[in-house]
Amino acid sequence: MNETATPSFPKHLLDFQDWRRTQVESLLETAQMMQEVLARPVKKVPALTGFTVATVFFEPSTRTRISFELAARRMSADVVSFSGAVSSTTKGETYRDTLRTLEQMGIDAYILRTDAAGVPHQAHRWLHKPVINAGDGWRAHPTQALLDAFTLREKLGDLEGKKIAIVGDILHSRVARSNAELLPMLGAKVVACGPATLLPGSLPGTTLTTNLKEALAEADAVMALRLQKERMDKGLLPSLPEYIAGYQITEERLRWARPQAPLLHPGPMNRDVELEGTLADSPRSLVERQVANGQAVRMAVLYHVLVGKKS
Amino acid sequence: MNETATPSFPKHLLDFQDWRRTQVESLLETAQMMQEVLARPVKKVPALTGFTVATVFFEPSTRTRISFELAARRMSADVVSFSGAVSSTTKGETYRDTLRTLEQMGIDAYILRTDAAGVPHQAHRWLHKPVINAGDGWRAHPTQALLDAFTLREKLGDLEGKKIAIVGDILHSRVARSNAELLPMLGAKVVACGPATLLPGSLPGTTLTTNLKEALAEADAVMALRLQKERMDKGLLPSLPEYIAGYQITEERLRWARPQAPLLHPGPMNRDVELEGTLADSPRSLVERQVANGQAVRMAVLYHVLVGKKS
Amino acid sequence: MNETATPSFPKHLLDFQDWRRTQVESLLETAQMMQEVLARPVKKVPALTGFTVATVFFEPSTRTRISFELAARRMSADVVSFSGAVSSTTKGETYRDTLRTLEQMGIDAYILRTDAAGVPHQAHRWLHKPVINAGDGWRAHPTQALLDAFTLREKLGDLEGKKIAIVGDILHSRVARSNAELLPMLGAKVVACGPATLLPGSLPGTTLTTNLKEALAEADAVMALRLQKERMDKGLLPSLPEYIAGYQITEERLRWARPQAPLLHPGPMNRDVELEGTLADSPRSLVERQVANGQAVRMAVLYHVLVGKKS
Repeated sequence: MNETATPSFPKHLLDFQDWRRTQVESLLETAQMMQEVLARPVKKVPALTGFTVATVFFEPSTRTRISFELAARRMSADVVSFSGAVSSTTKGETYRDTLRTLEQMGIDAYILRTDAAGVPHQAHRWLHKPVINAGDGWRAHPTQALLDAFTLREKLGDLEGKKIAIVGDILHSRVARSNAELLPMLGAKVVACGPATLLPGSLPGTTLTTNLKEALAEADAVMALRLQKERMDKGLLPSLPEYIAGYQITEERLRWARPQAPLLHPGPMNRDVELEGTLADSPRSLVERQVANGQAVRMAVLYHVLVGKKS
Repeated sequence: MNETATPSFPKHLLDFQDWRRTQVESLLETAQMMQEVLARPVKKVPALTGFTVATVFFEPSTRTRISFELAARRMSADVVSFSGAVSSTTKGETYRDTLRTLEQMGIDAYILRTDAAGVPHQAHRWLHKPVINAGDGWRAHPTQALLDAFTLREKLGDLEGKKIAIVGDILHSRVARSNAELLPMLGAKVVACGPATLLPGSLPGTTLTTNLKEALAEADAVMALRLQKERMDKGLLPSLPEYIAGYQITEERLRWARPQAPLLHPGPMNRDVELEGTLADSPRSLVERQVANGQAVRMAVLYHVLVGKKS
Repeated sequence: MNETATPSFPKHLLDFQDWRRTQVESLLETAQMMQEVLARPVKKVPALTGFTVATVFFEPSTRTRISFELAARRMSADVVSFSGAVSSTTKGETYRDTLRTLEQMGIDAYILRTDAAGVPHQAHRWLHKPVINAGDGWRAHPTQALLDAFTLREKLGDLEGKKIAIVGDILHSRVARSNAELLPMLGAKVVACGPATLLPGSLPGTTLTTNLKEALAEADAVMALRLQKERMDKGLLPSLPEYIAGYQITEERLRWARPQAPLLHPGPMNRDVELEGTLADSPRSLVERQVANGQAVRMAVLYHVLVGKKS
């Protein structure tokens, strides 16, 4: 049904299962070029003139939506926003009917976010145009992993052999899953760490541990995940103070990692929960750089799926 | 008050009472040209550069809003969106004050949707710029009727003498009312069919019947309407199973119509309520084509009311 | 932290404390030029091509947001809209993190509205790009005061020695506070009038009175403020009928002012509360002119903070 997926370059970004390392590296190189565009006073190129991109967010996320919107507009694409909360989905329309309707309106690419896992994969089969997964349930958030990888390489250079510790609610985290898929592909070793109730049984490509000291030991970088406070109310966590006591990233604990190991967080942060508030603003923090790099990476993704190039 | 309405072409689209057949046909010809623009890789023309169009939706409808927004942007107009749900209407501002305020901001055309009937007609008197009715209560939804007519002509050719069956909740349907106004103007015979509780006392230009077999007999096309499930709770309908038993369009019942008679639906569909879910995806269904044609028709409407031409 | 504030012209608009009279007058002259742009058939200039402006509204106001959006787009800027109600602020993100995140995305100017006073001043310290205050709590709404001043000068000429009466809920009004700051700077005398429970202890630059006749006596212009009905429920006002009896601007009471003294209102009006409904539509009313001038003034503000010029 979908003939846009060529063997030479995926015309979609659902997760990294059908991406090869060379393709990811080529995409990160494009992101580097986009970074240069973003450093100009006029941050706009005509690369996607005449294309119309839809953000289709069945789960709200203003930050991610705006990041994609700006990325698209900076390449001169038109953007329309469909948000589930105010849409006819409440009238019983299915995901499929919504997306097929947008397709009939001539949308050139879909940036899709859902609280249900797997919808972007289904959408890819329903539609004839590129689908970019902007987060589906606990499953995947590939542009976040790409911007994390871009940020890590910017700081650490080649990721071959580097140890990256991911700390927090691994079980419910699409960010953890996408990083666990991508970072090992680029040569990194990933250790995922959290309380036992917040760890999955296994996570391919990663070592799992409940021991924070072990996770941080000799780590080249540390990534704290956002804790969904809603989940704690459901008894998945003993209590917030217990989480903080065992897993909050503090300046002291960060000494377990390599000197100067940077600190990442996908945002928005719960200051003084996942990490000490002061750390977030310290030179160790790459949190703001991640956001800035998100622009470059999303521009590169849109460019690749819409205009493409041979890898 | 409104001097933009010239005798040669209405500078607004409230319903079809002040449109002549030649004018409608001229508009549908423009839509045909827009269809050709939409078939290009770059679906954008400079026809409305410098114009600013406002979608003013006091009743939410993401699909219709996006359809108009895309139509306007593809002709290079700027678009601002005013939505009643998050607006100062909740602070007691009247429709009139909202629209007059937008007029002071230099809006060139209004695409107006309200759950109250008649507001677009009032707006036309309050404002000096074109008003396009995007649906007012049960009264009218003229761009839907235009896209239905466009789609029917595309499939059936000239509508002269053709029988079109409209099935469902006729009483509360602005789609039925606008089609009942427009299709006979183009030569078609319209039969409107539904359970007695969902039929109006009379509907000018149509034959009313509670007998589905009679309605579909020799029909050249069948249009199922969306059933508002909310209404059923209010006792207007005996029950959903009864509606389905009597009025759902099934493959079997569709045999009462002419061979290959196409099936239309304004969307979003309640699959397996108004029609068998499988029918919606069959070659008989024009549902997706209607959405695509909606783009062309709305571009044509915007062009006619803003730039116009002699009929 | 913020080096964009040059001595010659403020690169932000928080209130008028760091603006000099010559700078305000220069800005109003720019607004006059923008007014001329708005009188053209194509109301668009390329002045801000390549700039991206964010409207960041933690307190909803569709009118003000659209006014700024149109102002920005008419100068060819890109606009993204962040609205607190649907954003990650509900997830605990602070104002600061939200704004710093947007900064990382390369926003060139912020149009900020909050129900808390002082946030724009904080934002100005957090950010490296211009901040325009679009209303912060009861504190300030400087573009409203600028458009009021522009409208008054258009009608009355030089404001030197002119008496402007502001009537209504002075205590909770950012509009009153910003006008009390700006109008005296331009030479006007401001009298603020309302029931005792709705007057502040003092308001620099104004004379306060509970006596409407005294306030209107020989006034060159009268400005009625919007009454927040929500506040009356909290017992701040005896009752709506009492307010109307004592402070509603009626045609009769307007005779206390100078002949032809115009009537202003920041909108949206509660007709027949703050003023007689018929007055709002009379030739005395400048309400719609204020909205139109708001476009010109906001274009001028955006131009000054983003492109600037020597005063």
